[in-house]
Amino acid sequence: MRSNPNHQWMPMPQHIDAAAVRIAPHAHRTPVMTSRSLDVKADAVLFFKCENLQRVGAFKFRGACNAVFSLSDAEARRGVATHSSGNHAQALALAARLRGIPAHIVMPENAPAIKKRAVAGYDARITFCEPTLAARERTLDAVVADTGAAFIHPYNDERIIAGQATAARELLADVPDLDVIMAPVGGGGLLSGTALAAHYHVSSPAVIAAEPEGADDAKRSFEAGHIIPSVNPRTIADGLLTSLGDKTYEIIRRYVHDIVTVSDDAIIAAMRLVWERMKLVIEPSAAVPLAALLDHSIDLSGRRVGIIFSGGNVDMDRLPWQPYTTQENA
Amino acid sequence: MRSNPNHQWMPMPQHIDAAAVRIAPHAHRTPVMTSRSLDVKADAVLFFKCENLQRVGAFKFRGACNAVFSLSDAEARRGVATHSSGNHAQALALAARLRGIPAHIVMPENAPAIKKRAVAGYDARITFCEPTLAARERTLDAVVADTGAAFIHPYNDERIIAGQATAARELLADVPDLDVIMAPVGGGGLLSGTALAAHYHVSSPAVIAAEPEGADDAKRSFEAGHIIPSVNPRTIADGLLTSLGDKTYEIIRRYVHDIVTVSDDAIIAAMRLVWERMKLVIEPSAAVPLAALLDHSIDLSGRRVGIIFSGGNVDMDRLPWQPYTTQENA
Repeated sequence: MRSNPNHQWMPMPQHIDAAAVRIAPHAHRTPVMTSRSLDVKADAVLFFKCENLQRVGAFKFRGACNAVFSLSDAEARRGVATHSSGNHAQALALAARLRGIPAHIVMPENAPAIKKRAVAGYDARITFCEPTLAARERTLDAVVADTGAAFIHPYNDERIIAGQATAARELLADVPDLDVIMAPVGGGGLLSGTALAAHYHVSSPAVIAAEPEGADDAKRSFEAGHIIPSVNPRTIADGLLTSLGDKTYEIIRRYVHDIVTVSDDAIIAAMRLVWERMKLVIEPSAAVPLAALLDHSIDLSGRRVGIIFSGGNVDMDRLPWQPYTTQENA
Repeated sequence: MRSNPNHQWMPMPQHIDAAAVRIAPHAHRTPVMTSRSLDVKADAVLFFKCENLQRVGAFKFRGACNAVFSLSDAEARRGVATHSSGNHAQALALAARLRGIPAHIVMPENAPAIKKRAVAGYDARITFCEPTLAARERTLDAVVADTGAAFIHPYNDERIIAGQATAARELLADVPDLDVIMAPVGGGGLLSGTALAAHYHVSSPAVIAAEPEGADDAKRSFEAGHIIPSVNPRTIADGLLTSLGDKTYEIIRRYVHDIVTVSDDAIIAAMRLVWERMKLVIEPSAAVPLAALLDHSIDLSGRRVGIIFSGGNVDMDRLPWQPYTTQENA
């Protein structure tokens, strides 16, 4: 167990332990699954941490739950707020409902109807805005000024990072002798939490991230030594479009071993293989690490590899191997 | 624990116990999963036995494995044989490979390529025949005469029934206080095994079967008091097309509480709901009992209900909610 001397904000082992205790009454302890046929294909021994089976269908519930239940009663009464049209919005809305406080979600007016319904289904108060970054931030500022709600960033927040870290912490409790843990990277909340949990574990497995080729800002940031924002990302893995934050970047820079990239074709093939062989619904973002293994973007022959299946929220009418959706995404 | 006085062939508790021991080194002990949102929709407390996560993706592996490992060494050396283009063929092929003996599978020459590949992938020796019942039986007889292989019927066989019974036996070990267990019914192997396991359990939960409206021969047989064969069945649930056998019928007649039917639309809706909410891939046949609950074909309000998800083998290019496949099935 090691410390992070120069970053007071950086989650320490005791913060991740506290997050695990805090979310335990609400979050699922998700199973770790295996597959003989995928082991053969990857020439490695794979352990899949099934966050697709987490509440709201994604690891995001861990961080949101930890953040919401970290608030003082006085803070909590004024509610929480965020901007997101994805899994973080649903996760925050559910965590707030469980604490009995309001959740204010700023969403672009052109968000898919299925996502609007999902967030509304958790009783969140939705404020729509124009689909630009400026409008989103302006609208969020107005909501926070109006309500006094606590802004919970989707990933660049130590409470979120500590919450996401509990997934790898559980994986390592179940399978302590992993050589490597792989996770996808978008904003870096899951990856930085995974890297801390691995670093603090007695065996300190290497952490390797996987990223779509069409949204490779994390890899470029990792190599350049400073954050390079994501500009016009194009990938089927719609959970991985965002840029790193300064906090997630700092942890990734220090504690992640490598970042590899894969094509959308490889992501779609890996996703479909998991549906067919493991009978598990995972979203494209969740398939990125396995895609990197199967596509030989990285060689982990003979290793014991933990892979975090980050989520399973998929629009069943728009599967990526269907001809008409492929056209839309082309 | 009770006995079956008049039927020497009928599996007794000790036969099901022996099957459980026999298959334990080879079969998965599949998990029992739950879903808050499906509980709300069904107004019941549901426990899903995930045989879609069984080897070869279906409960069929249990029976095939029990049958193959029940053979004497002398019998086993000559191999096993069956006619099937479905999950039983794959299950028997894998069980035979695990024992190191040949499996001879008779398949209609027009079977889907995906099924031919799956069976061939388990090293089975495939003999193709014309797609008629007469040709299938004639071809099987020839294979058996030629090789001396033991014919393993897909369901009308006490070794198969005892093997399938182990799924409900495990479910009741994990959740002993069920009020009801539901299973789909085609040839009746799973249903008769489930009914025996429930009958022999200390709490004797009621067993209720669900069947597609377009293949309702089991319900009609159950009501008529004799076997009515399945003629020109039409349903999306392609694992449930066959008629009952005399052995499965006799057990079902005695120990099953009721058989209810549901429409294909309800089956497809229930299947999709499981994919979306539970993130589990199940095949249409596996969705039939849940469809009956959600469609109010039966009222189990407030009850604790075990449901066997019988399998998860689906052609991802032909999902039933896709416009072009729906047309083909219309």
